[in-house]
Amino acid sequence: MKYVYMFSEGDKDMRELLGGKGANLAEMVKIGLPVPRGFTVTTEACIKYYEDGEKLNDEIISQIMSSLNELENITGKKFGDEANPLLVSVRSGARASMPGMMDTVLNLGMNDEVAKVMSENTGNERFAYDSYRRFIQMFSDVVKDLPKSNFEGFFDEFKEKKGVKLDTELTSEDLKEVVGEYKRIYKELMGEDFPMDPTEQMIEAVKAVFRSWNNERAITYRRLNDIPASWGTAVNVQEMVYGNMGDTSGTGVAFTRNPATGEKKLFGEYLINAQGEDVVAGIRTPEPIDRLKEAMPSVYEEFVKNANLLETYYKDMQDMEFTIENGKLFMLQTRNGKRTGAAAIKIAVDLVNEGLITKEEAVMMVDPRSLDQLLHPMFDASELKNAVSIFSGLAASPGAASGHIYFNAEDVKEASENGVKNILLVREETSPEDIEGMNLANGIITSRGGMTSHAAVVARGMGTCCVCGCSDAKIDEERKTVTLKDGTVFNEGDILSIDGSTGKVYAGEIKTVDPNISGDFGTFMGWVDEIRTMKVRTNADTPRDAKQALDLGAEGIGLCRTEHMFFEKDRIFKVRKMILSDTVEEREKALNEILPLQRGDFEELYRVMKGYPVTIRYLDPPLHEFLPHTDEEISELANSLNITIDVLKNRINELKEFNPMMGHRGCRLAITYPEIARMQTKAVIEAAINIKKEGIDVTPEIMIPLVGHVNELKFVKSIVDDTAKEIISNSGVNLDYKVGTMIEIPRAALTADEIASVAEFFSFGTNDLTQMTFGFSRDDAGKFLDDYYKKKVFESDPFARIDESGVGSLVKIATEKGRSVRSDLKLGICGEHGGEPSSVEFCYKAGLNYVSCSPFRVPIAKLASAQAAIKNGGQL
Amino acid sequence: MKYVYMFSEGDKDMRELLGGKGANLAEMVKIGLPVPRGFTVTTEACIKYYEDGEKLNDEIISQIMSSLNELENITGKKFGDEANPLLVSVRSGARASMPGMMDTVLNLGMNDEVAKVMSENTGNERFAYDSYRRFIQMFSDVVKDLPKSNFEGFFDEFKEKKGVKLDTELTSEDLKEVVGEYKRIYKELMGEDFPMDPTEQMIEAVKAVFRSWNNERAITYRRLNDIPASWGTAVNVQEMVYGNMGDTSGTGVAFTRNPATGEKKLFGEYLINAQGEDVVAGIRTPEPIDRLKEAMPSVYEEFVKNANLLETYYKDMQDMEFTIENGKLFMLQTRNGKRTGAAAIKIAVDLVNEGLITKEEAVMMVDPRSLDQLLHPMFDASELKNAVSIFSGLAASPGAASGHIYFNAEDVKEASENGVKNILLVREETSPEDIEGMNLANGIITSRGGMTSHAAVVARGMGTCCVCGCSDAKIDEERKTVTLKDGTVFNEGDILSIDGSTGKVYAGEIKTVDPNISGDFGTFMGWVDEIRTMKVRTNADTPRDAKQALDLGAEGIGLCRTEHMFFEKDRIFKVRKMILSDTVEEREKALNEILPLQRGDFEELYRVMKGYPVTIRYLDPPLHEFLPHTDEEISELANSLNITIDVLKNRINELKEFNPMMGHRGCRLAITYPEIARMQTKAVIEAAINIKKEGIDVTPEIMIPLVGHVNELKFVKSIVDDTAKEIISNSGVNLDYKVGTMIEIPRAALTADEIASVAEFFSFGTNDLTQMTFGFSRDDAGKFLDDYYKKKVFESDPFARIDESGVGSLVKIATEKGRSVRSDLKLGICGEHGGEPSSVEFCYKAGLNYVSCSPFRVPIAKLASAQAAIKNGGQL
Repeated sequence: MKYVYMFSEGDKDMRELLGGKGANLAEMVKIGLPVPRGFTVTTEACIKYYEDGEKLNDEIISQIMSSLNELENITGKKFGDEANPLLVSVRSGARASMPGMMDTVLNLGMNDEVAKVMSENTGNERFAYDSYRRFIQMFSDVVKDLPKSNFEGFFDEFKEKKGVKLDTELTSEDLKEVVGEYKRIYKELMGEDFPMDPTEQMIEAVKAVFRSWNNERAITYRRLNDIPASWGTAVNVQEMVYGNMGDTSGTGVAFTRNPATGEKKLFGEYLINAQGEDVVAGIRTPEPIDRLKEAMPSVYEEFVKNANLLETYYKDMQDMEFTIENGKLFMLQTRNGKRTGAAAIKIAVDLVNEGLITKEEAVMMVDPRSLDQLLHPMFDASELKNAVSIFSGLAASPGAASGHIYFNAEDVKEASENGVKNILLVREETSPEDIEGMNLANGIITSRGGMTSHAAVVARGMGTCCVCGCSDAKIDEERKTVTLKDGTVFNEGDILSIDGSTGKVYAGEIKTVDPNISGDFGTFMGWVDEIRTMKVRTNADTPRDAKQALDLGAEGIGLCRTEHMFFEKDRIFKVRKMILSDTVEEREKALNEILPLQRGDFEELYRVMKGYPVTIRYLDPPLHEFLPHTDEEISELANSLNITIDVLKNRINELKEFNPMMGHRGCRLAITYPEIARMQTKAVIEAAINIKKEGIDVTPEIMIPLVGHVNELKFVKSIVDDTAKEIISNSGVNLDYKVGTMIEIPRAALTADEIASVAEFFSFGTNDLTQMTFGFSRDDAGKFLDDYYKKKVFESDPFARIDESGVGSLVKIATEKGRSVRSDLKLGICGEHGGEPSSVEFCYKAGLNYVSCSPFRVPIAKLASAQAAIKNGGQL
Repeated sequence: MKYVYMFSEGDKDMRELLGGKGANLAEMVKIGLPVPRGFTVTTEACIKYYEDGEKLNDEIISQIMSSLNELENITGKKFGDEANPLLVSVRSGARASMPGMMDTVLNLGMNDEVAKVMSENTGNERFAYDSYRRFIQMFSDVVKDLPKSNFEGFFDEFKEKKGVKLDTELTSEDLKEVVGEYKRIYKELMGEDFPMDPTEQMIEAVKAVFRSWNNERAITYRRLNDIPASWGTAVNVQEMVYGNMGDTSGTGVAFTRNPATGEKKLFGEYLINAQGEDVVAGIRTPEPIDRLKEAMPSVYEEFVKNANLLETYYKDMQDMEFTIENGKLFMLQTRNGKRTGAAAIKIAVDLVNEGLITKEEAVMMVDPRSLDQLLHPMFDASELKNAVSIFSGLAASPGAASGHIYFNAEDVKEASENGVKNILLVREETSPEDIEGMNLANGIITSRGGMTSHAAVVARGMGTCCVCGCSDAKIDEERKTVTLKDGTVFNEGDILSIDGSTGKVYAGEIKTVDPNISGDFGTFMGWVDEIRTMKVRTNADTPRDAKQALDLGAEGIGLCRTEHMFFEKDRIFKVRKMILSDTVEEREKALNEILPLQRGDFEELYRVMKGYPVTIRYLDPPLHEFLPHTDEEISELANSLNITIDVLKNRINELKEFNPMMGHRGCRLAITYPEIARMQTKAVIEAAINIKKEGIDVTPEIMIPLVGHVNELKFVKSIVDDTAKEIISNSGVNLDYKVGTMIEIPRAALTADEIASVAEFFSFGTNDLTQMTFGFSRDDAGKFLDDYYKKKVFESDPFARIDESGVGSLVKIATEKGRSVRSDLKLGICGEHGGEPSSVEFCYKAGLNYVSCSPFRVPIAKLASAQAAIKNGGQL
């Protein structure tokens, strides 16, 4: 097995084996760009390292040694040589770019002897010892896990003692002193001398890079970016070139186009007399790349030539690192540059217009998730730089907001009525009663609950930014406080800022900028729609949401949750009266009061949807969710119902369940109380007849939730059919409707052939299906799933990204069995996964007819759907 | 389609079409026994009736009419004839016997004219009008749904007015008056005259019998006895013969052997001058069948001859109904008799010894569920010595019980739901509506009715002890009191004790002892064990349970729930300390205190199990289940932990979950707190080493609960292996152990191939698997499942009888996928289904290696397993 490749042996297509950085370095060598030479230890070596229980085996070590030998031959330098010593950088480089997630060691090969030789050879003692002290600190940090603060603390004190502010102001004698002190600190902490043997340094550094593949931030990054742990990282060993050799040296980073706007203009910055980490660390402020044109015209000219070559070559915007050593340009890295959603769209459209890529390639080039940013306000980047995150949670609903914090829906309402403009609702977890407050708030923070918790689902539907499951913040709803781990307390009315796209929460206000949807977006989505075959609908409960979704390109409603119509202030009382009825007659009377309201809702919805399909799900949540919780509300309700508080409390208690998620809800309600399904059918059908009379086409799709057994569906469908047929025949209007079911109970998927004999369509409710298939309560799982990620039991959140082998296999079983008895069975998905790109691709491959997602995710789902089509041979 | 068969057209193998009663009547006709002639309307007519929306179609009616015509020809009588009128009985008869569950109408064909003719023809006016009033009442009740009380109330008043106690004391004039009044009551309630047309009476009666297939008590009975609703019932129309024609007439019921003990001796009772319902209703106390020998020697002789013939013919104990009309014997019915478990065993063994049947047939003959009764406790003899019997009755169903008395089925149900543990149901006489209460009660007492009364028959079937016909005790169901002759009164909730084997009732509680199993049982279980291939283990958490199960034939422990060891008073504090620890160190300290206790438990268990396999499940329930609930306990615990009540309450609150069933439990605990799994491994392995040193063999099977993803199992298994291997290698003892998992999460079944790559065995936890597959919380489902049964959405309780198409298909998927990667994967089941006969058969067919059930169900599971083997070709 070949574990090590010289740069000259690789090329850009060997990304899996050499990692992105390694493959691109090899490619640049191949096309003749000035690249310091070196070799790559493969990702397979990393995998082997973990297989062997975190050990580098002899074979790998020996291949590294012989490649090192070859590098010494190429460069004419030698590790630890007294005449011409070789120094190298050791950097990670995974298949997918994971910027800043893993570790790098520069100036490796340095020791007391080499520092002396370099001083002599370069005549630049200051440079030699500056490199040495950097190396000691990096090696200690990256390889030996000694916190940087040990060295930085001393260094800051030392600079103060010397009365200087910048590193560059220190003399070579100063730096020698620093090196001596660094070695002392190392020995004190490690109990042994700093290693002087360059070979030992290198093997340790390679192992450290492999280890860093599994540090906590890398694991988190992989989870957020769907990168499998099994890939491993490669290690690149490369001859050092020096940006810190004086004023004709420097180092920088540049993009071929502006990564924030997409503008076609070189964009970047550089620092004179510095090494790479200085640019990143922000100790000195770098110069914009334009200035290089004046400072070193020929270097600049060469760099621009290289940049253009690379962009044309890779057919994408490039992100490059370079170093200038004594006036000579070296290219250290190139990769496809990260960019904002807006930039991604502009670059893709521009590249098509420039004739560099096809429209299909353009569609493939934009990460669907990045579209989120185009549709929501974001923090002003310049302000964000200085903001300090105080805690974080799940990035549950994108967008950014600053506002005064309030701890319950009533307080939000009151504040809003009192003219408070920017409001954040802060709750342990929201419940349906909070709807009104959530609607008024500019952002939502919760301490419990995951990506499919109530807060997350509703916030996404509303397009309100939301950070969920902030377990580090203690939210006390009684006392109205947020307490941080360090004891800091925020009270009602204090200002916080949240970024629902990153999950970060900040103290104080941060300015936001509004989204900027350009004409390019329309052009781009036009291509997406042409390529796409799978439909995209939306989950919308109100005409407002439906309108929003239509504007964003939705092709129907895949899920209208009728219970959301019950929570409005003037309705909830009627609903409570219905729930607390003692007899069928009483309940029917209460339902009769609700009927005209719900019918009106449907009429509006049908009108907005102009003939697009509308799927209406019947009452789903357990009834106790509608009942009041506080003593005040209970006493108020008891009064209006003319019963005692005790009787009411008793009744509420009776409705409580041990595991409401698996309790009396969904179609189970319709079986106990057929009159509810009858009322909802009247509302759905009568509204449709009224709208048809207005000349708008409508074919309601009635969806029965939580079916696990065909008999449940049969029972409810017969209520629907009996009611609907009578109304239709009395109306004289020719109305079609369909009755189908959610597939959200494992048993429904397993017996989908039986169920499809009754259901005219299926919609996979993958939120609940994921809950039942894993046995995870989404309201509770947040707590222990954190441990799962940390301990590498899970790589991704199954509520965010569909679990293909478990939940996905149920989807496949249901699809196959369902279509075996009803070949034209319409299949969709209405769980949160319907707006998650990799899940959308899964749905495409599983043969679903449509996905349905919250309004703001419609463009994302469309793009993901188009990309899935292209991957499977689809073309414009 | 032929919907109606004359008795002469059928035989005993047509049970599916003609029902059990119809097929046996046909058979008796065929072998020449004296059977009143008639015809059977098939079960297919019933199915058609329901398909047609509860309508009898013309084809069926016309076939009934032509069969009636044929019956008229055979008997020489005619419906409504003025010379020789035909009267018939109309009775239900399903494939499986459902005693008392459906409806019967006797004397049909009666009207004013016919009554007059019969008076003249028989010269027995009293008889004619007695038959008439019975007919009106039955027809009104069964066909028109008019409560019997309307007629009985009047009848009782009438008797009082006439100063008589027994019906037989009324004169023919009295009865004419009663008939007149009954017709008046009918007209008042129905708004129309009582129907005089016999044909109309019959069609209505047939429909009523079909309807009764779906009355509530029939549905409940079917659910308890696993009878599918789709079978339908047949209807038997049979010429009436009269046991109420005077003192040379009578009616009775008899068994060829004693149904309580199995003794080979005719057993039964009869009433002179009565119709069938009088025996069942228990208004008069019947005579033992022996007396018939003296009263009517030739009739008796003929009956004994018929009985012997039938037993030899059917190769099983027969339960026969007969009527004597003016000295002539008629056989009305024969069927394989219901019997107690003890009788079933004795009869089976005796029939083998008599050479009538093979051992395999004997094994197939005993209902596994009936073994329950053999295993129920009896009163402790020493305590019984001092107990004073307060009254006694018939020893109707064996076994003994003490309990709080309740006077109707609803009160029993409520008491049971409120946690009352030992309950006796006390009734004047039970009726089929009481089924549910009877099922929940530990014993039954009635003041009326004989050995074949409803209470007696049903109690024997259920294996519930029962004392019948306690005429010395006055039971007032209204006031809820039992009053003795000496005036002593017992009220609801008081404790009585009953011995169903002696018929004695005692005041207060009497200790019970385990049953003494007879030699026949050993013989029988010997055959069972020889035939059986699937192993039977037990679910046992304590050495006591394990010992019990071993005595009953268990072949290992399939499930030891370690958390049950945590609840003992002296341990729970340590467990709470562990749970409330803030750091890993604190938690480990607390676990170290628990370790020696748990190790001791395992040592005892291994010792008891003497080398049989022991499967130990690691900590499963959510931690908050261990925490205190009452304020008192909380304050006590806070004190001992030296923290404030507020801090403790907060901590308890943090551990609360919305859906604990799907929360932080099972292997999820071990992932968050690996130290718990480490402690349990130490206890399991160290105990095994200690026991091996004692010379007892042991191979612990460590079972990880609630695994849904292979990585969960990998994580926990590595903790187990690391811990175990170190202990074993330090001990110098050669110990094997296995690590496996519960399959109780749908995802585990769906990805069983991945999981089997790590697990060395699977145990299907079908309780939780049923919960997740259906999305039913078993703690909450009770409420709405009642509606499911009533509305025929479900026929059986999926928690009692395995759901083959849903849960079963997951078991099959897991079995197939698991064995595809590990062909010797050991598979078992440890849910409640492991002791339910039809589920055991499913497990056999699915290819499981063993079932595991509660100790008292071990013989049941063994027998069910042997029967499954025989059904699939197994032999001795």
